[in-house]
Amino acid sequence: MTRTVLESKTKTVVIGFDEPFCVIGERINPTGRKKLAAELEQGDFSTVEKDALEQVACGATVLDINSGAVFSNKMAEDPRYADNNFVEPSLMRDLINCVQGVIDVPLCIDSSVPAALEAGLEAAEGRPLLNSVTGEEERLELVLPLVKKYNVPVVAISNDDTGISEDPDVRFAVAKKIVERAADFGIPAHDIVVDPLVMPVGAMASAGRQVFTLVNRLRDELGVNTTCGASNISFGLPNRHGINGAYLPMAIGAGMTSAIMNPVRNQEMEAIRAANLLMNHDPNGMEWIRLSKTLDAMKEGGLSFAEASAAAATSSAGGRRGGRRRRA
Amino acid sequence: MTRTVLESKTKTVVIGFDEPFCVIGERINPTGRKKLAAELEQGDFSTVEKDALEQVACGATVLDINSGAVFSNKMAEDPRYADNNFVEPSLMRDLINCVQGVIDVPLCIDSSVPAALEAGLEAAEGRPLLNSVTGEEERLELVLPLVKKYNVPVVAISNDDTGISEDPDVRFAVAKKIVERAADFGIPAHDIVVDPLVMPVGAMASAGRQVFTLVNRLRDELGVNTTCGASNISFGLPNRHGINGAYLPMAIGAGMTSAIMNPVRNQEMEAIRAANLLMNHDPNGMEWIRLSKTLDAMKEGGLSFAEASAAAATSSAGGRRGGRRRRA
Repeated sequence: MTRTVLESKTKTVVIGFDEPFCVIGERINPTGRKKLAAELEQGDFSTVEKDALEQVACGATVLDINSGAVFSNKMAEDPRYADNNFVEPSLMRDLINCVQGVIDVPLCIDSSVPAALEAGLEAAEGRPLLNSVTGEEERLELVLPLVKKYNVPVVAISNDDTGISEDPDVRFAVAKKIVERAADFGIPAHDIVVDPLVMPVGAMASAGRQVFTLVNRLRDELGVNTTCGASNISFGLPNRHGINGAYLPMAIGAGMTSAIMNPVRNQEMEAIRAANLLMNHDPNGMEWIRLSKTLDAMKEGGLSFAEASAAAATSSAGGRRGGRRRRA
Repeated sequence: MTRTVLESKTKTVVIGFDEPFCVIGERINPTGRKKLAAELEQGDFSTVEKDALEQVACGATVLDINSGAVFSNKMAEDPRYADNNFVEPSLMRDLINCVQGVIDVPLCIDSSVPAALEAGLEAAEGRPLLNSVTGEEERLELVLPLVKKYNVPVVAISNDDTGISEDPDVRFAVAKKIVERAADFGIPAHDIVVDPLVMPVGAMASAGRQVFTLVNRLRDELGVNTTCGASNISFGLPNRHGINGAYLPMAIGAGMTSAIMNPVRNQEMEAIRAANLLMNHDPNGMEWIRLSKTLDAMKEGGLSFAEASAAAATSSAGGRRGGRRRRA
């Protein structure tokens, strides 16, 4: 049974075929979030703290920490601020220290800069997930030694030096190559979480079926866990949450075991909780019942999903502290 | 390639592995709808007409016609009105004539009374679906000759004289027996639509996985189409639409090709339309885009899903009549 074990200071999260779907919160990522990037440049980490707490309240059990930024306003001071290789290692360290200061969940260290990955591995408590290696030769040779040295699991993205193939058999072959190369380094398959690369169904009509088939093969033939950027599938189409909300249960049914996604969205999280229940990964339906109460509170109180989730988390923690449960 | 062909007076609907999921509207059913039963007893078919139009506007392509009623207020007049065998044949005929008078879609003739099934087969135009045969010996011997005589497809429910087994292997064996018995009558497997019987996941935690596995086996080993009562899965749990909305895409991903369900529910229909898109059964995403507009109209106009769907249907029909498309 494939189990990818992640740890924070005190918590363990297992990604696995017999586990609830693992939601990796994607929000802490300055790429494409100009406001956040500007805050980070000014040393303001308040949004990061808020995003960390909010995502976990909404159901993320792992937080992705992406340091993808340059500090263009500081370029006059030092031109190296225009370079990711200069900015990211220290930013990664700061982001991780900030998040670990407010919440205790395993992290996913996400950067294209190897020095930032290593800075993250040094700063993270427990056993983080490294994001990512690809089938590109240079990347394999840079990242796999880090994976081995720090004994951590790694996300393996199925593109290589020829780019991203539209042929799912080629993407499978790239994943297989990464798993084999990792084995050469003494890294077991259960520490590889493959991202088979999801195409937008609006651009490639077979994209959904491709993923479902690929996930099944990756599970049966390579015995690996899988992940994806959950929202790629709906890119360019209207009512994206509706597509994501059907895609996630279908991917889970096909064997997908995690996603890097925005958990502050009730439609996607409702779909995942229901899929966990239907996969028999929610003992006594406790998580489903809890989510249903949160959705009720949302409607009745005119709250956002994040607000209702935070209120539910507080109330449940209060109940536990007091030694008995509050009535709803 | 398994194709179950249904016909109305002028329309053809194919249930199949490479077709959009077939939604069979369940609303025209006096069982458990006291108000409707009372109306029918008084010869009032206005709700039936409304339900027929509304379900088709919302996305049903086949309408189930269930005649399950007794007329207890008429018992003083004639005690036979307490007997389904007396009431249902003529009621089935009246229901079918009423529905065929307002809309042209294939019907699913649904009764436990063999004479009502035959009355329905006589009244229905085209090639209706018969609902249902089971693995019970008496039922097999009564229904299969009708299926053969009228050359129609039939729903096969996988229970037998021993009842409904909780063991999915037994339910598969019952389905296999029905397919084999049908073959003895010269009825091909592609005219059998198996209902593998969905248990509530709240009562049996493995119910979801059971169905997904069963549907896959029914498709791969028997080559048959499948159906289910889509809402059974969520019986007894809170926020049932959320469970149904994940169950349907997962069942579709596993190979389920139709469901008998309430199409006047946006959460379920959104899930099905998204699953069709993800299965590459929605060329150019046209149906998805149309649904998205309907959902937008719902929110903006404060309309019910049925109202918004009816408005969209009218506007699109108007556009077609005028020979060009209206702008949204």
